Amino acid sequence: MVAGGPILTAAIETMAPIWARYKETLDMLSTHIGKTTHSEVPLINQVAQYTLNSGGKRIRPLLLAMSADLCGGGDRAAVLTGGAVVEFVHTATLLHDDVLDGAQTRRGTSSARAVWGDHVCILVGDYLYTLAACQVSAMANFEINDLFSATCREMSEGETLQLVHNDDFDLTEETYLRIIDRKTASLLSAACRFGGIVAGASDVQKAVLSRFGRNVGLAFQVADDTLDYVADDRQLGKSLGKDLEEGKVTLPLLHLLAHCTPSEREQIVSPPAPETAPDRLHDVVAMMQHYGSITYALNRAEAFADDARSALSAFPDSSCRQALFAVADYVVHRDR
Amino acid sequence: MVAGGPILTAAIETMAPIWARYKETLDMLSTHIGKTTHSEVPLINQVAQYTLNSGGKRIRPLLLAMSADLCGGGDRAAVLTGGAVVEFVHTATLLHDDVLDGAQTRRGTSSARAVWGDHVCILVGDYLYTLAACQVSAMANFEINDLFSATCREMSEGETLQLVHNDDFDLTEETYLRIIDRKTASLLSAACRFGGIVAGASDVQKAVLSRFGRNVGLAFQVADDTLDYVADDRQLGKSLGKDLEEGKVTLPLLHLLAHCTPSEREQIVSPPAPETAPDRLHDVVAMMQHYGSITYALNRAEAFADDARSALSAFPDSSCRQALFAVADYVVHRDR
Repeated sequence: MVAGGPILTAAIETMAPIWARYKETLDMLSTHIGKTTHSEVPLINQVAQYTLNSGGKRIRPLLLAMSADLCGGGDRAAVLTGGAVVEFVHTATLLHDDVLDGAQTRRGTSSARAVWGDHVCILVGDYLYTLAACQVSAMANFEINDLFSATCREMSEGETLQLVHNDDFDLTEETYLRIIDRKTASLLSAACRFGGIVAGASDVQKAVLSRFGRNVGLAFQVADDTLDYVADDRQLGKSLGKDLEEGKVTLPLLHLLAHCTPSEREQIVSPPAPETAPDRLHDVVAMMQHYGSITYALNRAEAFADDARSALSAFPDSSCRQALFAVADYVVHRDR
Repeated sequence: MVAGGPILTAAIETMAPIWARYKETLDMLSTHIGKTTHSEVPLINQVAQYTLNSGGKRIRPLLLAMSADLCGGGDRAAVLTGGAVVEFVHTATLLHDDVLDGAQTRRGTSSARAVWGDHVCILVGDYLYTLAACQVSAMANFEINDLFSATCREMSEGETLQLVHNDDFDLTEETYLRIIDRKTASLLSAACRFGGIVAGASDVQKAVLSRFGRNVGLAFQVADDTLDYVADDRQLGKSLGKDLEEGKVTLPLLHLLAHCTPSEREQIVSPPAPETAPDRLHDVVAMMQHYGSITYALNRAEAFADDARSALSAFPDSSCRQALFAVADYVVHRDR
């Protein structure tokens, strides 16, 4: 089973009315973000705007707004501020990630570091963290404070843990899951809980939203890690095999390493000569297809999406709940 | 006038009883910091401890504790938490600064980036910011929240502004002062105000402490920038001329550029061949001595220390106020 085809089409079609319903909110968010990033240092605004407007889908602010609506809706200003906070934090991590990965491109165009260099990206990443902190502070809500600071800490721990296990072909699935839980799922979980907080949700509801968001985040990252090996033909301009090249050991590779022969393992873990790198990816994907590693990983992503949906069963059926179900589906089957 | 000699000796002697008075607090702070940096990722603790214990004088926590005492003293736990916050933020900036500067050493020993590499230092810097945010959040004080987030934002703006003006020999003194105000003075100002907040100071007292801290910070940075050209003989192991080498245009150089001949200017701004770099520093320092640039810069540092002291005249005379006067003196005349 490879992502794409009819399932992808269905997932995108299910999302269409959701994007339409939240278009106004997301447009207002873009305006809010534009107004908020007005540093006295023009370069900061330039780099921040370039990265914030580089075509990301704003899935975190969307989840925040949808979670608020599920709990009866929150103050519009708080939803926008919350959306800006999660987007600033996400963008800060993208800027630092691109420095760590030496990335030349991001979403099909030049990465900020390719345009302005690593040093600028380190500092503007720092700035966006602090801007998020300023927005949180202005909300004057201790619960949001705690959520924000604990989430950012988890994320930096996840990023460091990933770095520690770079090129570690003995990585366990447990540690892999811990890494993606911290670096990715924590922010999606926080976005959903944030929505609950601004809508005045009960403690039980907030716990459900946290669990939903965490599982959506795990599904999202496992699917992303799998699509790095096999993506749909229509996704032109995507470069495959980045994780393999950068020494990031992810779920499909872990499955393959656990099932292949010793000589295949030797072939996988040996650093290739630069000229044979494309062959290496091709060979690894062929082995993954042979051992069912892609199917295994996508099934794990599906299972996390299922867990996300079942968490939401604590809420009565509604169009908001249906819409969140659709997002859980979408993150597994989306185009990247 | 060059820092060092009898004035330095006097400043150090005046500080001795102050260090002694705050030894217990600073020791407790070290214990508190050790207990607080307990990430689930061992590498983070290792790098954080290495950098936090690399011989910094903890001048920011000291100012915080002294400011609290000036206002009647605060809850000891809050003073320690505040001390950890300002030290974590300071250390985060050191980690990112060393990456930006490609620094091999820090305070006479290997820099963290020389030991663990740039990527680790970027992420542990991020972690220390978030750890500071967690500590602030746990204090559940909106005023401290606002102070913390606004200060961190100012600092990242100052660092970026410095980067923008790297190798800019047309930098104005106004912009230079803006850079050091944001990157350095903001945190010293915040440390003093933080002390006032935890001691329940009045708004007027807190404004005075902010102004005191800001001027101490400006004095500190101007003195530091000047000592980069001329330091006392006893300060063995210090490498001079780093700013010149890195293209950081600071106050003594600005003064020199404003007073030298066009051909001297040409000599100063031309990038030297690597083998002539030490000669360049020697020549530049000789010109600075000739045009009085060192004296000018140190006098500016003195003037900021004077402004700091006169801000404190709003408080009645006390041993606490005398001690803060001594710190204002010390930051200009200290060994680095």
